[in-house]
Amino acid sequence: MPIVTLTTDFGDRDYYVGAMKGVILGIAPTAQLVDISHHIPPQDILAGAFILRHAAREFPRATVHLAIIDPCAGTQRRALAFEADDQIWVGPDNGLFSFIFDRVDGDVHQIDREDLCAANPSHTFNGRDLLAPIAAHLCRGADVSEIGPTISDPIRLSETTPCKTTERIQGQIIHIDRFGNLVSNISAADIAPWGRNLHIRLDTHLLSGLEKTYSDVALNAPLALIGDADLVEISVNGGSAAHYFGLGRRTSIIIEKPS
Amino acid sequence: MPIVTLTTDFGDRDYYVGAMKGVILGIAPTAQLVDISHHIPPQDILAGAFILRHAAREFPRATVHLAIIDPCAGTQRRALAFEADDQIWVGPDNGLFSFIFDRVDGDVHQIDREDLCAANPSHTFNGRDLLAPIAAHLCRGADVSEIGPTISDPIRLSETTPCKTTERIQGQIIHIDRFGNLVSNISAADIAPWGRNLHIRLDTHLLSGLEKTYSDVALNAPLALIGDADLVEISVNGGSAAHYFGLGRRTSIIIEKPS
Amino acid sequence: MPIVTLTTDFGDRDYYVGAMKGVILGIAPTAQLVDISHHIPPQDILAGAFILRHAAREFPRATVHLAIIDPCAGTQRRALAFEADDQIWVGPDNGLFSFIFDRVDGDVHQIDREDLCAANPSHTFNGRDLLAPIAAHLCRGADVSEIGPTISDPIRLSETTPCKTTERIQGQIIHIDRFGNLVSNISAADIAPWGRNLHIRLDTHLLSGLEKTYSDVALNAPLALIGDADLVEISVNGGSAAHYFGLGRRTSIIIEKPS
Repeated sequence: MPIVTLTTDFGDRDYYVGAMKGVILGIAPTAQLVDISHHIPPQDILAGAFILRHAAREFPRATVHLAIIDPCAGTQRRALAFEADDQIWVGPDNGLFSFIFDRVDGDVHQIDREDLCAANPSHTFNGRDLLAPIAAHLCRGADVSEIGPTISDPIRLSETTPCKTTERIQGQIIHIDRFGNLVSNISAADIAPWGRNLHIRLDTHLLSGLEKTYSDVALNAPLALIGDADLVEISVNGGSAAHYFGLGRRTSIIIEKPS
Repeated sequence: MPIVTLTTDFGDRDYYVGAMKGVILGIAPTAQLVDISHHIPPQDILAGAFILRHAAREFPRATVHLAIIDPCAGTQRRALAFEADDQIWVGPDNGLFSFIFDRVDGDVHQIDREDLCAANPSHTFNGRDLLAPIAAHLCRGADVSEIGPTISDPIRLSETTPCKTTERIQGQIIHIDRFGNLVSNISAADIAPWGRNLHIRLDTHLLSGLEKTYSDVALNAPLALIGDADLVEISVNGGSAAHYFGLGRRTSIIIEKPS
Repeated sequence: MPIVTLTTDFGDRDYYVGAMKGVILGIAPTAQLVDISHHIPPQDILAGAFILRHAAREFPRATVHLAIIDPCAGTQRRALAFEADDQIWVGPDNGLFSFIFDRVDGDVHQIDREDLCAANPSHTFNGRDLLAPIAAHLCRGADVSEIGPTISDPIRLSETTPCKTTERIQGQIIHIDRFGNLVSNISAADIAPWGRNLHIRLDTHLLSGLEKTYSDVALNAPLALIGDADLVEISVNGGSAAHYFGLGRRTSIIIEKPS
């Protein structure tokens, strides 16, 4: 029973999600539908890219991930299908897959198969009329190479990759979770060779060293640690780092190798 | 694997939806449950009827649609089961299926099978004790003709059908989507013979002609078009028609045949 | 197709729920996932315990219920797995299963199988790294007795059981539903031998007798009845008892046997 996950900013008060599920089940009746989230903040591609990445990586191979956060729906914006991490990804070419492109297997394809899509597609809802049918056909066994021509320049968000030298790495905060933890785009692997005795600069604030868990520091004290997303996070033991520092997404974070 | 969809105003913070799903899976263990929405505004039958219609029509044949928006739960209000569009529909007799009745195959049945329902039904939760079991039995293959006597007078909302003559059609706004588009009850088929050079009167405002897509007019200008629900919509390119006009549901819309 | 239900306070705007579903399907690909709720108020164990109980009891035997409302995630708090009501229960040892413990079949086990869990578990997300894998293995057929040692002292909330003598029963309000009904922890079975001619004291208010349904009293009048959860509820016909009385959870309710 193949899996199709859905990640959108469509909310839960309209017919959009239900209609897409109906289309998928009409083409792939044995598909197992799994909602990742339909509450990505409207048109927030970075938020969608982050949540998609960290939920999707837990799914088994051959899962089809259909993701739609698309401020330009209804325009000539390209749509993509490709394989990465032994999974299949379908959605708009607007940066939503930025965290995935480094692990692509094979080529990225531009969707160009009107024959597989709705007979009379609307001008305004290509999630239902284009992307859902393609996801369903891929779930049934179609190969991504049949979906359209290869492209070499899919759009990537600038926020996904930190800037690294041999002495320091400069990243940014890309996610604030509901506990107020500030999650950066610097991975555990990026800094693993440097050990834990690091200098960490968040905006104008200095933190020394990487802790293992919240309780390694005093209550209400800030700390840096590797969070459950395998990324460097700035937290406050028993509190909210977002409130403590008054900082938000896209704040600079710089980590220096100990001298 | 038969599909059962659920459309309710039960929200997601109580045990109501979970309990109904448990009941269905207890009777029909292989049913595939699909949520359309549990966030229909409380007791808003028109909103439920609209969303149910536009999600449900995408599902494959034999899908069972269980819908409960029921301001009169716990009273003697009738409950219905019937076939339409090669699908099966179960819910209260209060207008929730108004958009479906024109496509009924066979008869509408009043549910009258206490033997299929909960052993000790509550007085207050017939979604769990009556409608969910009936939906599950229909999903397992019971025939709607076995569910109860035929009735000839199911309740219809007055908002679902526009008033049409050979020269004009008078309808109303029945849905406002999250982008502020004003969706009417006038279908593409209703006005197809008249072409696109139409006179459209929304409340006291006049619009000329039917456009194809938003970008056919200037940014922030209003337009009329056929939306993805195959209905006449009043939109604003890059904005919200609901804000632009300050109008809501049940606003009159009149379309005149070009002279 | 075995069922795994999920009940959490994780909300729907992050990757937590999606990641857990991916883990479960990676281990148990044929599991049928059913959301009970992810909108339990944050860290509200009593609310989670109540909703879990009243949704879960409708599910078929062998269903695995995974529940996580855990103010102490990341500490040394124990995690449990056990059988009750012919179903399987997995979650933290913090009172979340208080309504279930009276129906345990066999023993309660403390989870102690790191070999079944994530290879490199995080310090902060044991729902994904510990509880979801255990639930998936139990869904695939592992026996709860293999999951870890027996414990005799699982944590119970004090709110779950009323205090009963031969003449009176003292309980409390444990749930307020979205209609404002005040649901107590006194069950229909607790008072069945006493008939309906009861004296009911809610905080300082007196009500006489148990009604059958809302319309047994005048509009806007208060009443006591057995609700759809099989518990004594205080309601107002056509209104909200929570507003009428201005009372909340943990309010005392005393029922006296008629003399």
